[in-house]
Amino acid sequence: MTKIIDPYGSELVEDYTKLIKEFGLEHFDVELFPEPNKLMRRGIVFAGRDLKIISKCIHEKKPYYVLSGIMPTADKIHLGNKLVIENIAYFQKHHAETYVLVADLEAAAARNVSLEEARKRALNFHIPAYIALGLDIKKTIFYFQSDNKEVMDMSYVFSRKITLNEFKAIYGNADPGRIMSALLQASDILYPQFKERMPGIIPAGIDQDPHVRLTRDIVSRTKDMKFFAPSSIYHKFMPALDGSIKMSKSNPDSFIELPEDPKSACKKISKAKTGGRDTVEEQRKHGGQPEKCMVFELYKQNLIEDDNELEKIHQECKSGKLLCGECKKMACEKLTDFMEELEKNISIAKKNMDKVRFVKFEY
Amino acid sequence: MTKIIDPYGSELVEDYTKLIKEFGLEHFDVELFPEPNKLMRRGIVFAGRDLKIISKCIHEKKPYYVLSGIMPTADKIHLGNKLVIENIAYFQKHHAETYVLVADLEAAAARNVSLEEARKRALNFHIPAYIALGLDIKKTIFYFQSDNKEVMDMSYVFSRKITLNEFKAIYGNADPGRIMSALLQASDILYPQFKERMPGIIPAGIDQDPHVRLTRDIVSRTKDMKFFAPSSIYHKFMPALDGSIKMSKSNPDSFIELPEDPKSACKKISKAKTGGRDTVEEQRKHGGQPEKCMVFELYKQNLIEDDNELEKIHQECKSGKLLCGECKKMACEKLTDFMEELEKNISIAKKNMDKVRFVKFEY
Repeated sequence: MTKIIDPYGSELVEDYTKLIKEFGLEHFDVELFPEPNKLMRRGIVFAGRDLKIISKCIHEKKPYYVLSGIMPTADKIHLGNKLVIENIAYFQKHHAETYVLVADLEAAAARNVSLEEARKRALNFHIPAYIALGLDIKKTIFYFQSDNKEVMDMSYVFSRKITLNEFKAIYGNADPGRIMSALLQASDILYPQFKERMPGIIPAGIDQDPHVRLTRDIVSRTKDMKFFAPSSIYHKFMPALDGSIKMSKSNPDSFIELPEDPKSACKKISKAKTGGRDTVEEQRKHGGQPEKCMVFELYKQNLIEDDNELEKIHQECKSGKLLCGECKKMACEKLTDFMEELEKNISIAKKNMDKVRFVKFEY
Repeated sequence: MTKIIDPYGSELVEDYTKLIKEFGLEHFDVELFPEPNKLMRRGIVFAGRDLKIISKCIHEKKPYYVLSGIMPTADKIHLGNKLVIENIAYFQKHHAETYVLVADLEAAAARNVSLEEARKRALNFHIPAYIALGLDIKKTIFYFQSDNKEVMDMSYVFSRKITLNEFKAIYGNADPGRIMSALLQASDILYPQFKERMPGIIPAGIDQDPHVRLTRDIVSRTKDMKFFAPSSIYHKFMPALDGSIKMSKSNPDSFIELPEDPKSACKKISKAKTGGRDTVEEQRKHGGQPEKCMVFELYKQNLIEDDNELEKIHQECKSGKLLCGECKKMACEKLTDFMEELEKNISIAKKNMDKVRFVKFEY
């Protein structure tokens, strides 16, 4: 059995278990997936839907797809996006057709970003950043929502397959804007199947499950269309760096942007909530508490690939050998290296934009 | 003052007055419009919204538009469509830019007619029929909803401007399919203003007012976009020919199709509800009741252009001189002429389809 390094799991484990029960999710079974990535090995990926069908596609080399979206509203992304990209890259490496759509319609409708502006941002930043973070430029197929009339057309068909009350049961809120966006997303999720029906997987934060549920409901109502219901895998939320309840734009110390000036990011690390004790003496005596430490969380989710290295830090913290100051310094160094590498890779990707594959629409 | 020939008005006049009050409509003031058509002169057009601005455009030769839609679900239209076309033609003659959209997306979503099938029907029948019924082939601009990405894009923006409860207040029902269609229609209604803001008028049956209200609400919420709120004029419902409560597809005797075999149509006229008395003697003595007569309604709304001719029939009926049998025979002759003329004009229009103007979309 593949080792799962999540004895360190977050304090929220119980809540996640509740989530799984409440929404009828599957527990993520790492044994289904060959060569699992660190998010899978470490329990950061914790749940999903219809995972066996994807496992089968991987093992039997059958066609399937992975799909995700870019919301081109801001000029930055954050570490949460990196988790999604890491999971996309996993399936891409395991022969999934890879689709990444730019949700420019959504950005225009919900955030008042014009389609032109959204396109510019996606081309100048988001797409290069996604490539820099690990997507294969030759194997990833991008499209702009606003170019994809087939998706829009299909969303009208889907709109007839679901009632207002069903929509409310899934989303709570059912305002017209929400409804139109959600139906467009359901249509995006199935788009890679428009030409050829095949299984597909949506890697996302657990907060995106409603879109997957809606899409699955629609598939079950349009049996004559023979779509495969989308599978999904979900990662846990990244906790707020400073220990506040959640990451928030109004509190920049709570999260790290991508890219971010390493000095600014290191300052945030220096203020981060740790699992350290009140005094050095106490910490030497009782050891630190990595399971409560946001810096350890950074290592686990983002900065350390090697399980043995992570394990070593865990042990040295627990034993009182590694103190928080030293540990934060090391995290800052790793983050600085990572940011420098990222900036470099974004520059390279920007120079290769002519190699990016976009869906060719002919209307 | 222009004479209004509606002492004959339908028995529903009181209800229409109530409608006007309830929905905040304007009474239709025929004096606002030069050379009013027969529907305007005869009180069949009875209400509207923001009519003065259109009157001003007509009198001052300022740019404005008229817009309507074709629902390409059936292979026939009916006399109700003819009323709409007559009003479109009126504004077209008074220099309105004329837009007629084919609601193929709506047909696909709501009625399971594929986009290809809808397009075929529109090209082979509806568009030629609309031209045959009086639209100027050189001055009417058609488009297919599914070709018009700008309209779709804008409907997403509009979706954010209205809440679910506001939607319910306008439409009663607020199922997702209804919401998406309605927002698409609001976007269609404003489409002629996308390039250049100008007033526009929507001629329709009163049942279409919710779309106009929704569009006007959206315009008032997007003041920065500077759209003109759409004006509208409404005609009364055509009553069911056989006196049943309303026209219904399940009861073919209740309405006349366009085109329809004259023999079949004349049979329906022979069965039509009239305002005749129980016996010939009584009718000679008391006269008929044209205000209750569906055949007279046919004359008034459809078959007789000349007010004097209509007036003469009215008087001869009231005086007991014209009996129902003779009157129905005359109606059958007029309808036969009309149908033959229509079939001929549809054939001509079909041959001229290469002259039809479609919006050229370049995506």
